[in-house]
Amino acid sequence: MSMKQQKLYHGACFYPELWNEAVLEEDIHMMKETGINVVRIGEFAWSKMEPEEGCFDISFFAHVIRKLAANEIETVMCTPTATPPIWLTHGHPERIHVNEKGETMGHGSRQHVCTNHPYFRERARLITEHIAKEIGGLPGLAGWQLDNELKCHVSECMCETCKTLWHKWLKERYQSIDRLNEAWGTGVWSVTYQTFEQIPQPGPTPFLHHSSLKTMYQLFSMEKITEFAHEQAAVIRKHSDAPITHNSSIMFGVNNEDLFSGLDFASFDTYASQENRAAFLFNCDLWRNMKKGRAFWIMETSPSYSASLESYALPHEDGYLRAEAVSSYALGSEAFCYWLWRQHRAGSEQPHGSILSAWGEQDVGYRNVLEVERARKEIEDAVLSTVPVQAETAVVYSDRAKAFLKTEPHRQLHYRSLITDFYDRFLSLGIHRDVILEGSTLAGYKLLFTPFIHYLPPEFIKKASAFTENGGIWIAGPLTGGRTEHHTIHTDCGLGPLETYAGVKTLFTFPLDERRTVGSAFGIKAPLSLWSAVFEADPAEAVGIIEQGPASGKAFMTEHKRGKGKIVMLGSMPAGEAGDMMLKKMISHYAEEAGVTLNMNVTPGTIVAPRMGPDGTLWVIVNMDGKGGEVVLPYNAADVITNNREARGRLKLGPYQYRTLLFPAARQ
Amino acid sequence: MSMKQQKLYHGACFYPELWNEAVLEEDIHMMKETGINVVRIGEFAWSKMEPEEGCFDISFFAHVIRKLAANEIETVMCTPTATPPIWLTHGHPERIHVNEKGETMGHGSRQHVCTNHPYFRERARLITEHIAKEIGGLPGLAGWQLDNELKCHVSECMCETCKTLWHKWLKERYQSIDRLNEAWGTGVWSVTYQTFEQIPQPGPTPFLHHSSLKTMYQLFSMEKITEFAHEQAAVIRKHSDAPITHNSSIMFGVNNEDLFSGLDFASFDTYASQENRAAFLFNCDLWRNMKKGRAFWIMETSPSYSASLESYALPHEDGYLRAEAVSSYALGSEAFCYWLWRQHRAGSEQPHGSILSAWGEQDVGYRNVLEVERARKEIEDAVLSTVPVQAETAVVYSDRAKAFLKTEPHRQLHYRSLITDFYDRFLSLGIHRDVILEGSTLAGYKLLFTPFIHYLPPEFIKKASAFTENGGIWIAGPLTGGRTEHHTIHTDCGLGPLETYAGVKTLFTFPLDERRTVGSAFGIKAPLSLWSAVFEADPAEAVGIIEQGPASGKAFMTEHKRGKGKIVMLGSMPAGEAGDMMLKKMISHYAEEAGVTLNMNVTPGTIVAPRMGPDGTLWVIVNMDGKGGEVVLPYNAADVITNNREARGRLKLGPYQYRTLLFPAARQ
Amino acid sequence: MSMKQQKLYHGACFYPELWNEAVLEEDIHMMKETGINVVRIGEFAWSKMEPEEGCFDISFFAHVIRKLAANEIETVMCTPTATPPIWLTHGHPERIHVNEKGETMGHGSRQHVCTNHPYFRERARLITEHIAKEIGGLPGLAGWQLDNELKCHVSECMCETCKTLWHKWLKERYQSIDRLNEAWGTGVWSVTYQTFEQIPQPGPTPFLHHSSLKTMYQLFSMEKITEFAHEQAAVIRKHSDAPITHNSSIMFGVNNEDLFSGLDFASFDTYASQENRAAFLFNCDLWRNMKKGRAFWIMETSPSYSASLESYALPHEDGYLRAEAVSSYALGSEAFCYWLWRQHRAGSEQPHGSILSAWGEQDVGYRNVLEVERARKEIEDAVLSTVPVQAETAVVYSDRAKAFLKTEPHRQLHYRSLITDFYDRFLSLGIHRDVILEGSTLAGYKLLFTPFIHYLPPEFIKKASAFTENGGIWIAGPLTGGRTEHHTIHTDCGLGPLETYAGVKTLFTFPLDERRTVGSAFGIKAPLSLWSAVFEADPAEAVGIIEQGPASGKAFMTEHKRGKGKIVMLGSMPAGEAGDMMLKKMISHYAEEAGVTLNMNVTPGTIVAPRMGPDGTLWVIVNMDGKGGEVVLPYNAADVITNNREARGRLKLGPYQYRTLLFPAARQ
Repeated sequence: MSMKQQKLYHGACFYPELWNEAVLEEDIHMMKETGINVVRIGEFAWSKMEPEEGCFDISFFAHVIRKLAANEIETVMCTPTATPPIWLTHGHPERIHVNEKGETMGHGSRQHVCTNHPYFRERARLITEHIAKEIGGLPGLAGWQLDNELKCHVSECMCETCKTLWHKWLKERYQSIDRLNEAWGTGVWSVTYQTFEQIPQPGPTPFLHHSSLKTMYQLFSMEKITEFAHEQAAVIRKHSDAPITHNSSIMFGVNNEDLFSGLDFASFDTYASQENRAAFLFNCDLWRNMKKGRAFWIMETSPSYSASLESYALPHEDGYLRAEAVSSYALGSEAFCYWLWRQHRAGSEQPHGSILSAWGEQDVGYRNVLEVERARKEIEDAVLSTVPVQAETAVVYSDRAKAFLKTEPHRQLHYRSLITDFYDRFLSLGIHRDVILEGSTLAGYKLLFTPFIHYLPPEFIKKASAFTENGGIWIAGPLTGGRTEHHTIHTDCGLGPLETYAGVKTLFTFPLDERRTVGSAFGIKAPLSLWSAVFEADPAEAVGIIEQGPASGKAFMTEHKRGKGKIVMLGSMPAGEAGDMMLKKMISHYAEEAGVTLNMNVTPGTIVAPRMGPDGTLWVIVNMDGKGGEVVLPYNAADVITNNREARGRLKLGPYQYRTLLFPAARQ
Repeated sequence: MSMKQQKLYHGACFYPELWNEAVLEEDIHMMKETGINVVRIGEFAWSKMEPEEGCFDISFFAHVIRKLAANEIETVMCTPTATPPIWLTHGHPERIHVNEKGETMGHGSRQHVCTNHPYFRERARLITEHIAKEIGGLPGLAGWQLDNELKCHVSECMCETCKTLWHKWLKERYQSIDRLNEAWGTGVWSVTYQTFEQIPQPGPTPFLHHSSLKTMYQLFSMEKITEFAHEQAAVIRKHSDAPITHNSSIMFGVNNEDLFSGLDFASFDTYASQENRAAFLFNCDLWRNMKKGRAFWIMETSPSYSASLESYALPHEDGYLRAEAVSSYALGSEAFCYWLWRQHRAGSEQPHGSILSAWGEQDVGYRNVLEVERARKEIEDAVLSTVPVQAETAVVYSDRAKAFLKTEPHRQLHYRSLITDFYDRFLSLGIHRDVILEGSTLAGYKLLFTPFIHYLPPEFIKKASAFTENGGIWIAGPLTGGRTEHHTIHTDCGLGPLETYAGVKTLFTFPLDERRTVGSAFGIKAPLSLWSAVFEADPAEAVGIIEQGPASGKAFMTEHKRGKGKIVMLGSMPAGEAGDMMLKKMISHYAEEAGVTLNMNVTPGTIVAPRMGPDGTLWVIVNMDGKGGEVVLPYNAADVITNNREARGRLKLGPYQYRTLLFPAARQ
Repeated sequence: MSMKQQKLYHGACFYPELWNEAVLEEDIHMMKETGINVVRIGEFAWSKMEPEEGCFDISFFAHVIRKLAANEIETVMCTPTATPPIWLTHGHPERIHVNEKGETMGHGSRQHVCTNHPYFRERARLITEHIAKEIGGLPGLAGWQLDNELKCHVSECMCETCKTLWHKWLKERYQSIDRLNEAWGTGVWSVTYQTFEQIPQPGPTPFLHHSSLKTMYQLFSMEKITEFAHEQAAVIRKHSDAPITHNSSIMFGVNNEDLFSGLDFASFDTYASQENRAAFLFNCDLWRNMKKGRAFWIMETSPSYSASLESYALPHEDGYLRAEAVSSYALGSEAFCYWLWRQHRAGSEQPHGSILSAWGEQDVGYRNVLEVERARKEIEDAVLSTVPVQAETAVVYSDRAKAFLKTEPHRQLHYRSLITDFYDRFLSLGIHRDVILEGSTLAGYKLLFTPFIHYLPPEFIKKASAFTENGGIWIAGPLTGGRTEHHTIHTDCGLGPLETYAGVKTLFTFPLDERRTVGSAFGIKAPLSLWSAVFEADPAEAVGIIEQGPASGKAFMTEHKRGKGKIVMLGSMPAGEAGDMMLKKMISHYAEEAGVTLNMNVTPGTIVAPRMGPDGTLWVIVNMDGKGGEVVLPYNAADVITNNREARGRLKLGPYQYRTLLFPAARQ
C-alpha cells in the first residue's frame, strides 16, 4: 500500500453481522460477480463483539474475514468505537457527550459518548486489543480503520471531564494565568481570569465569547481526538503489522494533518453531489498529499445517492460514478469503496443508496458499479505502472484555519466552501495542482497559494520565505495573516510577520462593499468583496488598485521580489464574473512567470491527471461534467487501452468518457 | 344525532364563566337573534369547577344549561381536562409535560400536564364524574365533548412517567428484548438493548434516532391518549346517555380512527384559509366516514379570521362562510359551530375573530353568520329529508401513515399536505369521493386509492384484495407499502405483500430527480418526482414507463388483473403541470374503467354534494372559489327552495352561490 | 451641559487599561492631532479596578483623567457594572442571568449576571462608591455614564431572585390575587392563581402565555433596571457634582423615559446604516426631548462600520459621517463620539471599525473623522449661539408601547421599525418635528401623533384632550388605544376612553387584507393593511372610507372637533405607494389646518434643522443621501461660515454638503 501500488481496490462497506449466514454466502457470491475485491467491516459492531461488558467475542468477524479471503476478497478491519453499547452509557450521564447548548446526548445514534472520558478510553482500549489480537494475523487483512468519521455528528464536547482536561491543556500551553490573560487580551470586557479553573467552556452567554476562548477550545478538542486515535493505533500495532488509517473528511472537527501524522495511510469519505465535482477533485488532490508518497483510499462514497430518514441527495447521472472512480485512481487513489454493499433494513440511514437493496436486488446504481469495475480493469496496468506527477502549483489547506474561521466567520463565511471555490479556478484553467498541508514540504513547487488562513505560523512563513528566495512565487491571501496564534490582532502591523516579508504596509482591514468598491488589476476591473486588507505598497509594488470606494487609491494586490522569487499579497476578493476573470488572470499570470508547465489545454469540466512511469508520461483524461470536452495533446500519444495512436492536437471526449494516453518518454 | 338528523345545528363556543350574569342574559338574547341553536361550554373551565383541590362546584354550568334550554338553545358539555388548574401542577414538576428537547413546560397555557401521569388521570376522572353527575340529566344536552384538541400544542411527552409506561408498552408489544432487537434491527450502530428499561425516549442525540424507535414512540403516545379519552368516556356513560365526541383534527398527534372507535359521533375543528378550501372539503369527506352512518359536527371554525397574539389569518371574503356552511351540511355535517361567540378579553387568543366583540358589538363576520343562518333555514328541510350518497371512489386517510412520514419525511414531506393535494384532483374532476379509514368497509366502492402509506397492515391488504377480486380497482401509491410495521424495510421484496399481490417486482426505490427524470403514461409525458419505487412489470403490465433518468426503461406505473378487478401500482409522483394532467388522466381512466358514475360535470371551484331521499336525488351545488361556476345537469330538476324547474344542461352559479336541486326519483 | 452649550464635543470611547503607558502617550498625542476633545473611559474595566474581591484600585483611571485634562481632553467616567469580574460569578450560578429558555449564562461575554441579585447590587454599589470618591473631584470630568447599554444583550431574567421580586412587585401592584385574576382575565384557560407565589415567569409553555403575564413581566423588568440605575446614580451624587447619564438606545429592554427621569442628561448609541438614515435622525429628534432643555450626547457611533466576529455592517461612504455629525449637532447634540478610539486587539468585537487600528494606524474612516472635526469647528459658533427650535409637530415614542407590541406582534410587527417608517414621512415632507415621550409636555405643539400605542394611559389622554381643546390636532392610531393597562381588551367599547373622546364607535378590530381592502381618503385610494379598527363615525365625521373588503362602507379615518381643536382617528394603515401618498396627504392636510409653519420646502434626502438665537433663525441644511438636494429659502439669508449672502428661492446642495444659513431676526 505504497504509492507504487499492487492493485486497484474496488470495495464496499459491509455489515455481515446484521444478516445471517445464507445472506453472507450470497453476498460473497455477488461481490465476486460485481468485482468487489475489498470490504470494510466492523466499524459499528461493538455490541456484537462485546454484547455485555467484558464478554468479548470477535470470532464472527474472524470467520467472515477468512471466508472473504478464501474468495480473494481482502478486508479493512475497523475498531467499533464510534458506537458504544448501551452498557457503557446507560445510567452514566457523566460519560456522555454534552453539546454547546449544554444538552446531554442520549443513546440511539452515534458518537454519543465523550471520547475523553477515562472509562470510555479504557473500554475502547480493551475492545481494540481483543480485535487486534484475534484479527491481526488473518489472511487478506488489507489494513485497519480506527473508529469512523471522528467528530462527524458532534463538535466540541462540554462535559465535566472535558472541562478538567481543558484546564490542564491550558496550563500546559500558557504556564501561568497571567500569560493567558495577556495572550488572550482578557482585559476586554473584564473577562480576566484569576485561575485556570475559572475558564469556562464556550457555552451559552448573552453575546459572543472572546475569539481566543472559542478558537483554543476547538484546538484543544482537535488535539484530544488525535490523542485518542494515536492511543488506539498503538494498541493495534502491538498485534498487527497491517497499515492503519481513519475514515476522515475535511468536514469534521478534526485536524487531519495531526491525526494522520500518527497513522499509516490516508482515507476519507465524500458524498459531494455531481454538481459539486470540484469538492470531489479537491479531496483527491488533498488526500494524495496527506501521506505523501503513499496512495490514499476513498473509503466511502455513494454508488448513486446518499440519504437518511430526513434528507437525501439526488442520484448521480449514469456515467458520473465511473468518472469519479477513474479520476480518483488517476489522482492517486488505491481504492474506490462504496457505502454500502447491502442497504440497511433498519436504522436512520435505511433509505441510503447501496449496491444491493435490503431485499437483495441490484440497486439503481448497480450498472454504474459494473462500469466502474470494467474501467478499473482497463486502467489498472497503466495506473499501477505509473505514479502521480507532483504538481508545480500548491494550495495550502489547513484545519486550523477552518477553526479560526468558525470562530470568526465575518458573515457566515465557511472555510470549506471558500477554499473549494478558490481551488475550482485551477481546474477551469487546466493547471495541475497539489493541495498540501501547512507542514508539507514545498520542494518541487513553483507557485504557492495560502488563501483564507487567518493565522500563519512562523515555521510556515520561514519555509515559504525560503521557497520564495529560491525562486518560487507565493500568493498570500485573501484573509491571510491577520491573526496571531491566540486569535488576537497583531499590534505591530496589520498582518504581522507576513506583512513585513511582503514589503507592504497594511493601512486598514475592513469589509469591502462590493456594490461600491471597484478594483483594477491585470487590465480588468472588478467589484471587490470580503473582509480585506488594503496596502501601501512600499517597497513592494502595487499590482491591483482600488479605484472606487472608501479606500480608493490604495492597493489590494501587491508583489515584492524576494531573492529569486516573489511574494504576492492578495488583500481582497474580486467578486462576480469580472472578479472570477481577474482571479484566473492572476493565477495564469503568475503561473507563467513561475514557469509552471503542468498547464493543460483542456475545456472546463474535463480534467487531465498526469502520471509518470518508466515508459513515459500517462495522461488520464476524464470528462466530469457529462457534457463532453476537449483537450489539446502536446505530442502524439498512444492509447494504452486500445493501443491506437492519437496524433497531437485536439482530442474530443464524449460525456463522462475517459482516455488513458501515454506520451512515450523519448518524446519529452 | 344519527345520519338521519332531526335538525341542523348552528352553534358557537361559549364561555359564560368569564362574564357576569347580565352579559349572559344579553348573550342568550343575541344568540336567538342570530339563530344560534347550540353552544359548546365548559372545556377550559376546570378552575371554575374545582377552584381548590377537591372543592367541586358545577352548579354554574347547570344554571347556564337550564337557562339556555329555556331559550331553546341546546348545549354540548365539555370536560375541562385540557387546562388543569394551578393546584394540580404547582410544585409538581413530575406531573408536567416534557418536550422532545427535554424542556419541562410551565403553567399559563394549555396541555402543560402529562396526560399519562396517574395523579392527573385520577383528578381528571374525579372532575369528569362530578360534571357527568350534575349535568347528565339536564334538558337540552345535545352531547358531550371530551377534553379539547388533544395533542394540539404538544407532541409526544418525554417525562419519567411516560418512560415507565413506554417500557411497559414495549414489553407488551414485543414480549422479549431479543424480539424487539430483531424487529427493530438494532444491530445497526450497536444500538442493541439488553433490557426494556434501557430503551430511551427519542430525545436529543448527535444524529437521528432509529426509525423504529421514533415511530413506535409516536404510536405509543397515540394509544395512550386514546386510552385516556376512552377512560373519560366510560366515566360519563355511567351518568349520561347523551352521545360523546371529541373536538379533533388531522393536525394533532392522535390516531383519530382509534380514538373515535370508542366515541359516539365525530367532530373536528378547521381553520383552513379560503385559499385552501380543499382542506375544508377533505375534512368533510373524511369525518363523514369517521363514524359511518352518523352525522359529524364542525365543532369549531372561524366566523371570519383566526388569530393569536403572534399570528393571524386574513378574514374570509363575504360569502365564503356561507359556502362553507352549506357545503358541510350537504356533505354530512349536522352542525356548523364557531369559535367563538364573544371575543376573549384576555389570554393569548384575545385577537381571535368572534361573533360578538369583547365589547358586545357584532364583529366583522357577523353579517356572514346571518347569511349562514338564512341558508341553514332554506336548506334544512331538504337536507333533513335526505342522506349523503356514498361515493364510489374512496381515498384512504391514515394517522399511522402520518406518524411514519413524521419519522421519515425524506425532504420535509408532510402527510397532510401530500394527501390534501392528491385529494384536490378529485374535486377538480368533479368526482364524488369518500375519504375513509384503514378500518373502513370497502363495500360499495368501485375505485380505491391508498397513497402515501409507508406501512399497509396485512388486514388492509386482505380487505383490499377481496375488493379487487370482486371487481374493484385499487390504485396503490405513491410511497406505499415500503415499510414493515416496525418501520424497517422488507427483506423479501421491496414493497412486501403488496408487491406480491400487484404482480410486480420492485427493482429499486430511490429519490427521483424531476429535473432529469421523465415518465410517460396515458399518452402524457411528465417529470417524475418523490421517493419512488421502480418496477419490473411481470406478470403485471407496465402502464407508465420511465423514459429518461437513471431507471429509464423501467415501469413506474403498472396494472394487474386480479379476479374481476385490478390493482394499479403507482410507484412515483408525476410532477409539475404535466404531472397534474397525468394524474388526472389516470384517475379519469380508472374511474371510467371501474364504472364510476358519480362524476359530475362541474367547473373547478364549484362542488356538487349528492344526497338521496324518498323523493329522489338532491344535488347541493356550491360555488366555493368566489368566481362563480357552471354545472351540467343530467336531467331536468326542481329547485327545492324556489320550486322552480331547471332544465337539464348547463347551469350557472354566481360567486359563492348555492343551489339545491332535486332530480325526482322516477327520472333516474 | 445645558441646551445652551459651552462647546461641541468630538469624542471617542477609550480603553487605556488595555494598553501600556507608551501607547497612552501616543493616543493622547493622536487625539489632539485628530481633534478629539472628550473620551469615555472605564465602562468595562471592573477587573482592572477590583481584580480581587475587595481589592479596589482606581488610581490608574485617575492618572489617565489627569493626563487627559492636562492635554485639554475631557472625560466621561463610567461605572463598570456591565462586566462583572469572574470572582463575582464563579461558583455562583444563583447570581447569573437566566434567559427565557431557562439557560443559565456563562462568563466570557457581558451582562451575564442578574442585575437584581442582592449580592451584585452590593458589589455594584461598592465599586461605584470607590470610583466616585476617587474620580469625583478630578479636573476635566465632563460627566458620568452608568453601566453601559443596559439590557442590550439580554432581555428579561428568569432566575430565582427575579421570581421572588416578581411576586413582590405583583403584590404591590395588585394587592390581592383576586384583583390580579380579574385584571388579567385568568379565567381564560383556567390559568387562575390562588396565590402570588404560583405566578410563573414567562418561560416555556406548549403554546403562548397570557398577554398580561408577558407584558407585566416586561414592565417589571424595566422598572427593576431603572431602580438599579437610580441606586447607582445616588451613590455617585454623594461624591460628585458632574452630570450623570446612561448610554442607552430604543433597541434595549429598558423604559428610557423612566430611566432618564432620574439622570441628568440623555445619551445613546446608534449604529444605523446609511441606508437607514431615518433611524439616525429619529434618534436625534427623540433624545433631544428625553431631557428637554438639555443637550444630548451621541455616546457611540461607528466612524465607518461596526462589526463583531460573526457579523458586520458595510462601511459608510465618504461624506456620510460628516453629514451625521453636522445634522446631530444641529438637532441638539452636544457630543458626537465614536466607538472606538483604538481597535480592540482581542475579544469578540476585534473586527469593529475604529479611529486607529490595533496596530496604531489611521483606520479606514479616519479621513472622515478629520472632516467631522473640520465641520465641527466651522459650525461651533453658530450652534453654540443658538438653540434648537421647538417643533410644532410631535410624535410620541413609548417604550411601554414597545413592550405591548413585543407581547402582541400580530405578524412579527416591530415597534421600532413601525415608528421609524411612520416618522420618515415627516422627513420627506420637510416638516420639523419633535419625537416626545408619553410624559412630555404638549405645550407649544400644534399637531400630535400617537401611532402604535396599544395602551394609552388616562393621564396622557387627559393631557392630549386639553391640547385638543386648546386648538391642537391630535391624530391617534393606527394600532392605538385597543388595550387596557393589563393588556386586556376593553369591554365597554373597542378603544376605551380614547374612543369616547374621539366621538366614534369602534365596530370591529381585525386584520385587513391589503390584497382585498381598499380605502379612500383625501381623494386618494389605497390598499389598507395592519390590524385595524373600523368605525361608525358619529358624532365624528368620516374622513376615510373603506370601499372594498369585508368592512366596506365603514370609516377607517374620522375627525371630531373638540373645543378649538380636533381629534383624528386613524384606524388602519394605508399600504403600498398609494398608501404612502395618502399618509403624506393626511399629514400635510392636518399640518396646514393646525397652522404648522415649520414646514420646509426641501427635497427628500436633505434635511433642515432650524435653530434660533439672538441674531435670528439659523437653518442647518444637510444632504444626507449623498445625491445632493435642493431647498427653497423663504427669505434672503447669510451664510454664517462664509458670510456670503444667499438670495431667497432655490438653493442647491452637493452630495453630503451642509450649509448654515442665518435669517436675520428682523426679517421674520
